[in-house]
This record gives sequence, structure tokens and C-alpha cells, in this order.
Amino acid sequence: MSTFPHSIIIEEQGLRDGLQSEKILIPTEKKIEFANRLVEAGLRRIQLTAFVHPKFVPQMSDAEEVFAGVDKTKNVIFSALVLNMKGLERAIKAGATHLSISISASDTHSRKNTNMSLLEALKEFKDMVREAKKAQITVRGGIQCAFGCRYEGKIAKGHVLDLARQHIDLGVDELALADSTGMGNPLAMKEMMTNILAMTKDMPVILHLHDTEGKGLANMLAAMETGVSYFDTAFGGLGGCPFIKGATGNISTEDTTYMLSQMNIQTGIDIVKIAQISRELEGLLGKQLSGKMHHIILENS
Amino acid sequence: MSTFPHSIIIEEQGLRDGLQSEKILIPTEKKIEFANRLVEAGLRRIQLTAFVHPKFVPQMSDAEEVFAGVDKTKNVIFSALVLNMKGLERAIKAGATHLSISISASDTHSRKNTNMSLLEALKEFKDMVREAKKAQITVRGGIQCAFGCRYEGKIAKGHVLDLARQHIDLGVDELALADSTGMGNPLAMKEMMTNILAMTKDMPVILHLHDTEGKGLANMLAAMETGVSYFDTAFGGLGGCPFIKGATGNISTEDTTYMLSQMNIQTGIDIVKIAQISRELEGLLGKQLSGKMHHIILENS
Repeated sequence: MSTFPHSIIIEEQGLRDGLQSEKILIPTEKKIEFANRLVEAGLRRIQLTAFVHPKFVPQMSDAEEVFAGVDKTKNVIFSALVLNMKGLERAIKAGATHLSISISASDTHSRKNTNMSLLEALKEFKDMVREAKKAQITVRGGIQCAFGCRYEGKIAKGHVLDLARQHIDLGVDELALADSTGMGNPLAMKEMMTNILAMTKDMPVILHLHDTEGKGLANMLAAMETGVSYFDTAFGGLGGCPFIKGATGNISTEDTTYMLSQMNIQTGIDIVKIAQISRELEGLLGKQLSGKMHHIILENS
Repeated sequence: MSTFPHSIIIEEQGLRDGLQSEKILIPTEKKIEFANRLVEAGLRRIQLTAFVHPKFVPQMSDAEEVFAGVDKTKNVIFSALVLNMKGLERAIKAGATHLSISISASDTHSRKNTNMSLLEALKEFKDMVREAKKAQITVRGGIQCAFGCRYEGKIAKGHVLDLARQHIDLGVDELALADSTGMGNPLAMKEMMTNILAMTKDMPVILHLHDTEGKGLANMLAAMETGVSYFDTAFGGLGGCPFIKGATGNISTEDTTYMLSQMNIQTGIDIVKIAQISRELEGLLGKQLSGKMHHIILENS
């Protein structure tokens, strides 16, 4: 029988990956309120926003304001996503100390998401990581579409491992692999993450999973069995990259946390408080979120 | 790294567990057509209907007609559910050769589902199994709510193992455990199924999973790792017991089959043909089913 870890660290992605493709703009004050409520609910890593072009991702156009507004007196890592040097400069100016700097494993996705080829993006990525390190920023390096791309199909494991090697050689502090499309499967998770963990040793390795094809928690379980203990989730299962066809839904914070609690694995997260955020957001967005537990929890509480 | 099985046997539950709580009655001819299309799609075990009281489950009131109507010339196990002696008699008269005879692990659920206490139901269950065996019927014994009950909460593992022992001693041919409420979790799956497989030895052991709390495929994965290789699924993720609060959704045949195919595990099932049934049923029921892959498959085919 596999042994599962005693605790799992969750990075909440709802305010960034969750909201970024939503057309209805959530007021800045509400985002800040949600972030502070996430802290109250026990989250210790929160990806707050993305310093990206406001024309392409209007929901993130208040990145500076959100970043400035949250309560930084608690022991919480507030992170943000940057995709290019311009975004990095904005993030540094905004006082960010932890940033997610990522590159897509898919050339086509890279072109659609950043308007750069994979090789151009890799050059930019390296420059960004060096610049961020110079500014004393903790860098979470990331590989998007690590388990498949809607445009290119399967992504070769060796290619992802090559990119991971580049991250490590550059000196990123943490490495995230993203199944941006939900195309990963438990076998691929086991194979990939076993290889990744052998390369990264003590470096935190984060897995970012989407539930597009219904495999989110199965993939998480498989990765957990290899030793991965950091996962991204989003309240209510909100989310999806605006440039990835069908990339709906991060794994839900509530569903994930609930499953882990049933397995006696600690997260420190108060699921009811998260579910209340999801429910309120459903009202603001005028739609039901794809997660399951926030409904069940609130009906029974 | 765990080794997964080379193949998994799926029993399609859509026409029984899937349809039973749907208010809109599907015409008998359509059910027969769906059953025959399931055979064409590669299913070799199909739970067709339930011989239960038509007043309580109107959707199953055509059990005899459906049973008589399907094409039995292929090498397919057509099964049905029976809950009491009256149903068993009807099933025998209808010519059934394979029946699912089950008992709930929860006293409260038993009373609501069968109007009998657990002990009364156990007596009836034993009489039914003996009667079915006398009639040369292959008996799939089943334990409902084996991983939790919405009314009673957790169900003790020892209690479920006791019931399993009774099944084995009675001479059932197969043993099914049902997570009727979706309250199971991967750790509980591993612990329970390791114990069950040690008791059952060569007897087929079937796991019936619901995705109510989003853990369906994670639970399947965990059980597969202990050696379980028979699973119930329902097209489109249809389903839920009408007497279990919140028991929505079997794990979807398409989602399950797709995950397994990605893991190089054979099922022999043509996922597109299943997705077409789900899509047609969505039209008939006027609602979207909770599975994910039938949408994705049909959009991309």
C-alpha cells in the first residue's frame, strides 16, 4: 500500500488562473477582500494576479492595485504571474517578492499565449529569471502544457524534462509543472513526476492540474504517490487559460481539500470559508462553478 | 511505481442506475436500442434494468419488456437489479441468468430503499441468494453504501467486511461494493479493497463508484492499485439512487474509458459510440449530463 504524505501545501489560484478568463470584471476591492478571506481560511500561498497586458486579459488590469491592497502582515506568500519582461518590471515595481515565471512546452500554445515561439520564449524566460533573481525575487519557474496541448497533442516527456533542466540550471527556487489542458493521466503523472523529483531533489515541485477531462483528482493522487506535495487549486474549480481551447477548470480547492482531509492529510484550510467565497463568486459571475464540494458543504452546514 | 492492470472490465449501469431516478420516462424501445448500441460499442456487461416496484421507480416499470427486447445473440452479460423476493421472482420469470442482489451497509438507507431494517434485509437477502442459486442464476452480491451513508455518515470497515463474509459464505459468484454516495476516498478504497480482495481470492470483485464529491476517478485509481479490475460506470455520468440524498452521478463511462486508454489499459469500449448515446439522452432528458469527455469527444470528432 502506498504511503501518502502527512500534509499537502496548496497554492490558491482562483484569483489569477480562476478569474483571468471571466468576462465579468470583479471589482478590485472584492478581489482584495477575497484574498484576505483566503488568508483567514488558512491559505499560505496565494497567486493573486498576473502582470499581463490589460488589453488581452482585462480581468488582470488591476494587478498593481490588488497587489498593493492585500493584508501582508500574515505569513503568506502572495505571488503573481508574469509572462514577459514588461510584466516582470511592473511586478518588481509593485513590490512582488515571489513570482511565477513560466514557459509553455508547446510551441503553438506559446505563440498564442505570448506571441513568441518556444525558442524566443525560452530566451525571454532566461532573461526574466536572471532579472528576477537580481531583484531578490523568489522564482517559481513553470512549464505550461507539460502533459499535452490541445493544438499539438501529446508533449514528449523528454522535452519537458529538458525544459525542467534549464529551469534548474538557471537557479529557479521552485518548479511548477502545469497540466494546463487537463490532458494528463495518472500513468503520465507517475512517470513524469518520478523523473522530475529525481532532478529537483530538495526544490519544491508544484503541480498545477486542470479537471477539464475529469481526471484532476486522480492525477493529483498519482502525483502524490510519487512524492509531490505542492498543488495548485482554485476555489470552486474556477479557471482556464483564455488561450487554451477547452482549458476549463482548475481542480477545486474545496474538492481537493476535502479529499485530503478524508485521507487524514493536513492542508490547514477551512473548507467552509472557501466554499463561501465560491458561492459569492457564483453570484457575481451569474453561473455555477464546476467544483462539487462547495455545493455539498454549504447545503449541509 | 505501481503497476496497473492491462485491462479493466466495465459494467455499464446507465440504463439502470443511470435512468432510475430520472422523472422523464424513456420509451421502452429507446432503452432497448440504447442497450443494443452499448453492445455495438463493446460493452460485455450491461445492467439493463431493475425488477423493483413500479410505483416507487416508474422508470423501471418496463423491466420485463426491456429484458425481452435486447439482442441476446452476442456474448454479453445482461444483468438486472432485484431488491426483494417479489423482484427476484419477476426476474426469474423474465429469463434472467445474471442478477445483482444487494444489501445496504446502512440501516437507515436500507429502511428508505427497501422498507426493511438491515437485519430484515439480510434475512431477505440470504433467501434471495439461495433462491437465485436454485434457479441457476449467476449472483452478483452487492453491498450498498459501503463507504459512507448520507444519513449515518461513515460506515465501519469491519461491518462491511462482515457483510462481505456473509456474501462469500452464501456462495455469491461475484461481489460488488458500492460507494453509493460518493463519500469514499482513495485511502479508504485502498484499505477496504485490500481486505476484500484477500477474502474473495478468485471471485470477481466489482467496484461501483459515484462522483458526487468529485473523487470518482481518484477512487477508481486507488482501487485499481490494489488489484480491482471490474468497475461500474454509466454513460455521461448519469445516475444516482432516488433514495440517497445527493447521490448524483456514477463515474462516467466515457471519462473512465478515456482515462484508462490514456494509461494503455484496455476496455474494448468505443468511446465515441458511448458519447453519442449520452448526447442523445441529454436531448431526451433536456439536461446536460455531468460527465466531461462526451462533450469533448463529440466536439472534436
